[in-house]
Amino acid sequence: MKTYNIALIKGDGIGPEIIDEAVKVLDAVAARFDFSMRYEEVLMGGSAYDVTGDPLPQETINVSLNADAVLFGAIGGEKWDNLPREKRPESGLLRFRKELGVFANLRPAVVYDELVNASSLKPEVVKGVDLMVVRELIGGIYFGEPKGWEGDKAYNTMVYTKPEVVRIAHTAFKIAMERGKKVCSVDKANVLDVSQMWRETVEEVAKEYPEVSLSHMYVDNAAMQLIRDPKQFDVILTGNIFGDILSDEASMLSGSIGLLPSASVGAKIGVYEPIHGSAPDIAGQGIANPIATIASASMMLRFALGENEAADRIDAAIKHALKDGYRTRDLANYDAKELCSTSEMGDIIANYA
Amino acid sequence: MKTYNIALIKGDGIGPEIIDEAVKVLDAVAARFDFSMRYEEVLMGGSAYDVTGDPLPQETINVSLNADAVLFGAIGGEKWDNLPREKRPESGLLRFRKELGVFANLRPAVVYDELVNASSLKPEVVKGVDLMVVRELIGGIYFGEPKGWEGDKAYNTMVYTKPEVVRIAHTAFKIAMERGKKVCSVDKANVLDVSQMWRETVEEVAKEYPEVSLSHMYVDNAAMQLIRDPKQFDVILTGNIFGDILSDEASMLSGSIGLLPSASVGAKIGVYEPIHGSAPDIAGQGIANPIATIASASMMLRFALGENEAADRIDAAIKHALKDGYRTRDLANYDAKELCSTSEMGDIIANYA
Ligand SMILES: CC(C)[C@H](C(=O)O)[C@@H](O)C(=O)O
Ligand SMILES: CC(C)[C@H](C(=O)O)[C@@H](O)C(=O)O
Repeated sequence: MKTYNIALIKGDGIGPEIIDEAVKVLDAVAARFDFSMRYEEVLMGGSAYDVTGDPLPQETINVSLNADAVLFGAIGGEKWDNLPREKRPESGLLRFRKELGVFANLRPAVVYDELVNASSLKPEVVKGVDLMVVRELIGGIYFGEPKGWEGDKAYNTMVYTKPEVVRIAHTAFKIAMERGKKVCSVDKANVLDVSQMWRETVEEVAKEYPEVSLSHMYVDNAAMQLIRDPKQFDVILTGNIFGDILSDEASMLSGSIGLLPSASVGAKIGVYEPIHGSAPDIAGQGIANPIATIASASMMLRFALGENEAADRIDAAIKHALKDGYRTRDLANYDAKELCSTSEMGDIIANYA
Repeated sequence: MKTYNIALIKGDGIGPEIIDEAVKVLDAVAARFDFSMRYEEVLMGGSAYDVTGDPLPQETINVSLNADAVLFGAIGGEKWDNLPREKRPESGLLRFRKELGVFANLRPAVVYDELVNASSLKPEVVKGVDLMVVRELIGGIYFGEPKGWEGDKAYNTMVYTKPEVVRIAHTAFKIAMERGKKVCSVDKANVLDVSQMWRETVEEVAKEYPEVSLSHMYVDNAAMQLIRDPKQFDVILTGNIFGDILSDEASMLSGSIGLLPSASVGAKIGVYEPIHGSAPDIAGQGIANPIATIASASMMLRFALGENEAADRIDAAIKHALKDGYRTRDLANYDAKELCSTSEMGDIIANYA
């Protein structure tokens, strides 16, 4: 029997609760499809700092690099906000991404038909939305040097090199080939030098994908178009900070940030995680929505482990649960038949899967 | 009779058409309230480049600095996109803002009751939205040095000094005092050094406004909250690029980007302009919505010239026209009784004003 080694990073806030449900569902499909999962739990974020004094212990990196994939919950919380920057949970996460080399963050925004009324946008605007944000994850202003705060002045550098743009552009075009064959590259080339290079480089890469149609959009306009007419998009290709902003915005199309998974890939080992944060305000109450994390586990099965049937099964089980009217608190107002807790939702999906 | 000197910058694309309608309405209220307007037309953007070889001729700066206010349409268009950066229309606009010293860009997002169905968001989500984005306009990554593109590498610098943050924070708090007494400062302090300084500086300034409640939000979350529950916001205070993105996003709450005005202030002379662009694709067809520009003229009367009654009159006339069902093409599907052209809309509003 095939066994997969998964590095499990529960993190902070609701992280542990939602990861537990994803594990429950993974184990259910593993049994059905005759493979097994071996989890090794490692620490990151505030909970790692509390135990080791470091938000990213070296062991976490080692275990992750030796696993088949990483399943990750969420990190952060006010409790650690006043630590020096390099001790903060977020610094651990950024270093983790960099150490693993996962340069491509894939953030699908999909609207479940069952929840078409849950969005703050009109149902006719969001019904059928199925787009993918491809965000560059280990460059740009998140990592650019020089940076600092000296006296009265503080600064960061938004920097990209051509090879960085080339590789993320290839990722986006390849994904578009499997989807609607459209890439919209988002930048601010009318103002930023770095965006002008980005745009020209994306144009060059596009020549290798003659079947894919490429368009460009300024980031301010993209923020607008995502709400005005989200169905115009297939793949959105963009840099680190613009991708951070636009993918969070896009997540609202689906009605709850508790629904959407993400994958950070591009290196040997990928990281699979919900796009939402650690939500310390609702941690430990059993009300968090585990679906985004369960969907991330499904992405992991599909993209890291090649267990497509098991992944299909999970995706269908999520839809089934939503169709039957099971809802966690975030979605209680939308066609709910039965309100359920975090672990009840995990049970239901594991059961259907 | 009092006479005001207005520098008139029509710009490119639909700029001339929409400015003509604002002038029509200004002249109508001037006659009613017994003042007069003297306009001096100067060039900026692509049309300035075509005539003078420079997107911002010195004369434009001189005339603007000697006027009582600047009324501006829009600039830009594909025609000029391949010029060297410093010749492009956008460079003219950025230099213009810098030369005038207008560091505060005020972008209200208001939803007209008459158009509550025009937004892609649900009416119950947008009805009553009334927020103001206060965007820093002459600093940040738009102007930061060093910047450039050398070989394989391109970069820009997001930089703020403390005095720059102090002055824009004061602007936001003062505006909040006249409104709902809430400021939400938007940054990315969990990642950026410049944002950490921004946040701490805003905290310090806040102490001088004990009546105003201050909150902080990360920019990714703000992009989400603006759609999830826009009514939570009163004043949003943010830097140049985040403000560019968020104010465009917020404009969609109103249903059409053709509705919203803006003011760029903070120096002796202010610039009043619609938040939308030059829309070259619809230029010259008489279908552009002039309301954003007419509302900008109203802001100019109120904030630059102190003609509050005339401004009230224009605001009421806009509402009246919308209530009566007059619509330009962008809003033709929303409770329209009569479709009208750009100049017909100008006539109707001038008539009601
Ligand atoms: C927690 C934070 C550093 C992170 C980011 O900005 O990348 C988060 O917002 C995300 O998008 O994963
Ligand atoms: C045209 C462009 C340079 C400008 C900006 O980014 O500031 C525009 O988007 C705006 O918001 O006024």
